[in-house]
Amino acid sequence: MADTIEKSPLAPACFPDLPEIAGAEFASISAGVKYQDRKDVTLMRLAPGTTMAGVFTRSSTRSAPVLDCQEKIALDSDVGAAIIVNSGNANAFTGKNGVDATKAVTETVAASLGLPATRIFSSSTGVIGEPLPHERITAKVDDLRDMLSTSAMHDAADGIRTTDTFAKGAGVEIQIDGKPVRISGIAKGSGMVAPDMATMLVYIFTDAKIARPLLQTILSELTDLTFNNITVDSDTSTSDTLLLAATGASGVSINTKTGPFRDALQEVMLDLAHQVVRDGEGATKFVEVCVTGAASDADARTHAMSIANSPLVKTAVAGEDPNWGRVVMAIGKSGAAADRDLLTIRFGDVLVAENGWVSPNYQEDDGANYMKSAELAINVDLGLADGCATVWTCDLTHGYITINADYRS
Amino acid sequence: MADTIEKSPLAPACFPDLPEIAGAEFASISAGVKYQDRKDVTLMRLAPGTTMAGVFTRSSTRSAPVLDCQEKIALDSDVGAAIIVNSGNANAFTGKNGVDATKAVTETVAASLGLPATRIFSSSTGVIGEPLPHERITAKVDDLRDMLSTSAMHDAADGIRTTDTFAKGAGVEIQIDGKPVRISGIAKGSGMVAPDMATMLVYIFTDAKIARPLLQTILSELTDLTFNNITVDSDTSTSDTLLLAATGASGVSINTKTGPFRDALQEVMLDLAHQVVRDGEGATKFVEVCVTGAASDADARTHAMSIANSPLVKTAVAGEDPNWGRVVMAIGKSGAAADRDLLTIRFGDVLVAENGWVSPNYQEDDGANYMKSAELAINVDLGLADGCATVWTCDLTHGYITINADYRS
Repeated sequence: MADTIEKSPLAPACFPDLPEIAGAEFASISAGVKYQDRKDVTLMRLAPGTTMAGVFTRSSTRSAPVLDCQEKIALDSDVGAAIIVNSGNANAFTGKNGVDATKAVTETVAASLGLPATRIFSSSTGVIGEPLPHERITAKVDDLRDMLSTSAMHDAADGIRTTDTFAKGAGVEIQIDGKPVRISGIAKGSGMVAPDMATMLVYIFTDAKIARPLLQTILSELTDLTFNNITVDSDTSTSDTLLLAATGASGVSINTKTGPFRDALQEVMLDLAHQVVRDGEGATKFVEVCVTGAASDADARTHAMSIANSPLVKTAVAGEDPNWGRVVMAIGKSGAAADRDLLTIRFGDVLVAENGWVSPNYQEDDGANYMKSAELAINVDLGLADGCATVWTCDLTHGYITINADYRS
Repeated sequence: MADTIEKSPLAPACFPDLPEIAGAEFASISAGVKYQDRKDVTLMRLAPGTTMAGVFTRSSTRSAPVLDCQEKIALDSDVGAAIIVNSGNANAFTGKNGVDATKAVTETVAASLGLPATRIFSSSTGVIGEPLPHERITAKVDDLRDMLSTSAMHDAADGIRTTDTFAKGAGVEIQIDGKPVRISGIAKGSGMVAPDMATMLVYIFTDAKIARPLLQTILSELTDLTFNNITVDSDTSTSDTLLLAATGASGVSINTKTGPFRDALQEVMLDLAHQVVRDGEGATKFVEVCVTGAASDADARTHAMSIANSPLVKTAVAGEDPNWGRVVMAIGKSGAAADRDLLTIRFGDVLVAENGWVSPNYQEDDGANYMKSAELAINVDLGLADGCATVWTCDLTHGYITINADYRS
């Protein structure tokens, strides 16, 4: 299915050259989980000494693999770990059968790699409510093990796609105390044709040496600044999973929450988050919504998300309509504090509204010209205090309806 | 513009015969507020002794007329009242100019009818951010006054339309203590081509005799069971206004919160609320979402609204896809309590999912056949406690995108 979709017009020019992470190996294979002849099962092995951290969907109907990961993620262990991912079937809302399927997959990987099952993390993405054909996956585990390579991260990025229109990766190499430290990550999300869940899966790897609790703290804090601030259509998957593995192979120890490692990790996470938005279903515009002057950071985020999720704002963006009235509407409905007469609204640098009305110098042509770009910024200052937040979204187009309404699952 | 739109496929066969309300008179006229040659200003006069109640948008960016109504609605007075409504311009986000325009309109009506300005309520609906050409409205007030008639409520329903595809009215006549009491109402909402706000305006009239505080209590409680439980696209207008006027002309006094008057009023309000959904932008399906078994009524409403506002659920309905996985997803993301393995989901009477998985007897053909109807019910039982709620919505179609993205304002 994915092969028939045109690449998003917002896709990066090419997949980046990701720094290899010593201690992290990858392999992808075609197992026929749902479709034939496409890579749909991916194995990632982490060397002994690797610490793991993760964040997961807060959905109350989360999938069996997510629940299994959550049980395992806080355990400390030095023996190494593995991650196995299948596309084509989400193993969500599958009752006890789903639990058994996850157990079968993770125990097979454990036996094949000589690891305890508590160190095997799994994700499933695709159609929900159908039994996972786990024997198709377990049949390929030994083959996958024999293919593992540190240079196959691009393959892994391809293997976790469902109907994403492009493979998503981001990486950096930084120097800490004069030694190189690398961070590389892959993600999938938001492209679907068979209308399932827009599941987001993200796997990030680093050769930094960092204790599990600190790794988890940094990951959780950065998630609130990156992946939790993107929205395509306000719908939350039952399967969202973000795993971060630190192999320690660089020999560089990270002992503080702040500093160059955190900054570099944030850069990689933000890059991947933006790529998910750029592959939003039917997206033709990438939109940054920046709210300043709010009563608090939380209020700013509430306003920004209200704007970013408003169907009327998103359709106006699709229509290249500088319809600031809809931005005013979205602020008004958000429930967070706002004073109509203190609002300032800019599209990019174009001052549109201020002092509770359209700016006296605003020319509709300036707004209309600005809206023609593929990358847009909606900037709102509330004039109340210092709270701020930035979120990212895409437009709402006929493409979204076509993808989600015109095809039957 | 409205004349070029096809009537919604979900529209009632015809405008109902509304019972006339003694003490409530109506007139509509063409004033050229935005377009020429369509009725766009409507005057309603209420006889001395009428009590008034109202509910208004909770938007923090509400319009000048809404703020003016809110200042006046809690005043007690026996001298009568009037409501003046214009379409074509919302007088929202218009700064001090908007306040002055509302003052000019209400004071002109007050002078013409010999009433204090504190008894003149006004609404404006249409494009936002443009100055209201109030002199076009005030120029017609004396003409409107001379046309007032108790039999012109259908004219009023037409006059408050912007791009609604049909005029909306509902009314009942009941017997209380052997005497007739009448309730009639009109509404506008949700049809737009020039992409402005989907403002909802509702005016209801009764000849019951009822004190203002009791009238307000009943209206507020019923609003939470009717208009607050409908959603077209989750976006909230800056101008939503619902006014209820009781002329007392029937001589029948209502002194209790419960009873036949409340029941009849609820029926009229629900009928009008459903008509607004049936005129939802691009709607081809009318959907009732009923949630039972929740931890509380509030939790049930949270789940129901999460389902009713989910773009993925609404596009599945548009595509006639019995995609219960998306219903599970919407429950999961709502934030209210749910246990995945206790959920029961029915499309109409078709049992789709139970015990955390698809029902063993479910046939996809049964679901697919059911989804072909224009009127659908999504029934969810959470299996937790006794909380329940029902909300109403429509599907999300290419029509919605066309209306809101393909035309420039």
